[in-house]
Amino acid sequence: MIQDYLKGQTQLINMYLEQYIPKGEPKILFDAIEYSLKAGGKRIRPILVLESAKTLKEDIDIKNFIDIAISTEFIHTYSLIHDDLPAMDDDDLRRGKPTCHKQFSEAIAILAGDGLLTYAFELISLNKNLSAEKLLKIINILSHNVGIYGMVGGQAGDILEDFKDIDFIHLNKTAKFIQACCQIGAVIADATPEEEDKLKNYGKHIGIAFQIWDDLLDEIGDPSKLGKKVNKDKEKNKITYPSIYGIEKSKEMAYNHINQAISYIKDLKNPQILIQIAEFIVSREV
Amino acid sequence: MIQDYLKGQTQLINMYLEQYIPKGEPKILFDAIEYSLKAGGKRIRPILVLESAKTLKEDIDIKNFIDIAISTEFIHTYSLIHDDLPAMDDDDLRRGKPTCHKQFSEAIAILAGDGLLTYAFELISLNKNLSAEKLLKIINILSHNVGIYGMVGGQAGDILEDFKDIDFIHLNKTAKFIQACCQIGAVIADATPEEEDKLKNYGKHIGIAFQIWDDLLDEIGDPSKLGKKVNKDKEKNKITYPSIYGIEKSKEMAYNHINQAISYIKDLKNPQILIQIAEFIVSREV
Repeated sequence: MIQDYLKGQTQLINMYLEQYIPKGEPKILFDAIEYSLKAGGKRIRPILVLESAKTLKEDIDIKNFIDIAISTEFIHTYSLIHDDLPAMDDDDLRRGKPTCHKQFSEAIAILAGDGLLTYAFELISLNKNLSAEKLLKIINILSHNVGIYGMVGGQAGDILEDFKDIDFIHLNKTAKFIQACCQIGAVIADATPEEEDKLKNYGKHIGIAFQIWDDLLDEIGDPSKLGKKVNKDKEKNKITYPSIYGIEKSKEMAYNHINQAISYIKDLKNPQILIQIAEFIVSREV
Repeated sequence: MIQDYLKGQTQLINMYLEQYIPKGEPKILFDAIEYSLKAGGKRIRPILVLESAKTLKEDIDIKNFIDIAISTEFIHTYSLIHDDLPAMDDDDLRRGKPTCHKQFSEAIAILAGDGLLTYAFELISLNKNLSAEKLLKIINILSHNVGIYGMVGGQAGDILEDFKDIDFIHLNKTAKFIQACCQIGAVIADATPEEEDKLKNYGKHIGIAFQIWDDLLDEIGDPSKLGKKVNKDKEKNKITYPSIYGIEKSKEMAYNHINQAISYIKDLKNPQILIQIAEFIVSREV
């Protein structure tokens, strides 16, 4: 079962993550960082870095680049902290626990996010196993796709009430970061330009499907199974796939992206796990 | 006159900066970034990158690394945007103009800051003139000194009312970033480890002096000459050098740091400009 495999990988990432949690002063800043990193989550981005590399090189030693994988979770955590701020999505709870600014303060949450983002690049720059060329390329891919031409741009579109381009928002807010994780895995595993492009496209399409499915879960999901509130998008007047296309058409579009994603990577050396991850994304109960 | 020279360098940086201002969608995000980058300032950090390199190699071609210099101003601008937020220093005006969150919105200001920080690393990763090893080292120096072990950590100390270690705050909030700029200039100009260390120490000590002098300007400066309000630290109950050591002792301590800074670099190849910059920092009228 892919779920069991992913659970194991989440535990593996959590074990390594623990070793990379930074310590220092002022204590409350580092407490906020640790609290947010340990708030849970499936660690899907680091897993995609590992699995994309393993798709090309089955027995690649993940110890040589686990820090790179972990850095993507640092960036994801920063984005959640800032997204939850009162001026942004204004969420008090995440995964049943107080959000960073609720547990600490708004100022500390802003700084913890800034610190996690910056530390992600520091972590990558400290890797001693990959060549400087590769590390620089990884930094380029990551900074491009989580910044103004990726996640930050998408998040801006998402919070602007008069910005109505849902495809821009999904692509930039969610898909580009996931795409970057898959591309980074490819770079680590010495991908040819064609292989890199295939994994990049796989990441883009599962990323878009992932966000469409999240929209669906928020619209018609069962809060007791999801462990979180639903209908938050509606309350916040957010534009979503189901609000534009309806439930059935949205599902169909998500399946199409998953099929496209799989078509890109099915002829790579060991595509089985990535295929199952793709299928899993649109099997989450709505 | 060093002031005239620095004014020329500020204009030079502004000319190049203009070329590096990113464009894109959503427009308001990019407008906020451009607005904040053009809000003025002396561009002292990029100037220190250039001048530190020129101290070792007088005729070095700055076109090969002007993007690196500009990236430090992007990071400085991000830090100002986030520092001004209501949850942080809550400033409505900066250099006589509305702060980013006042001109746009808090959400856009948070994202503009996040975007500028991330784009700084992207800019560095895109440089085609320096080796990957050098660029990676520059990213390491910068991320370390502006992150949790530098500026972000110092800023956290600064906003925490029960955090009283003024030297930690000055070193981390202000000096480490300035130190990083000088060290980066050294790396660019193929410094020996000793030369790199000297420029690093120069940067640290002018950075500390710079912050002590800023405390003094806020305490006893003439608002009409400074172009900004004074006594803001007192209003915000902030710990400062004059509040601990008094005016005269603070001045003396700033001069000491300047002398130390100069002692580190006076035997390098072309130290004249850096010496004058150091002296200028503690000649600003209080």
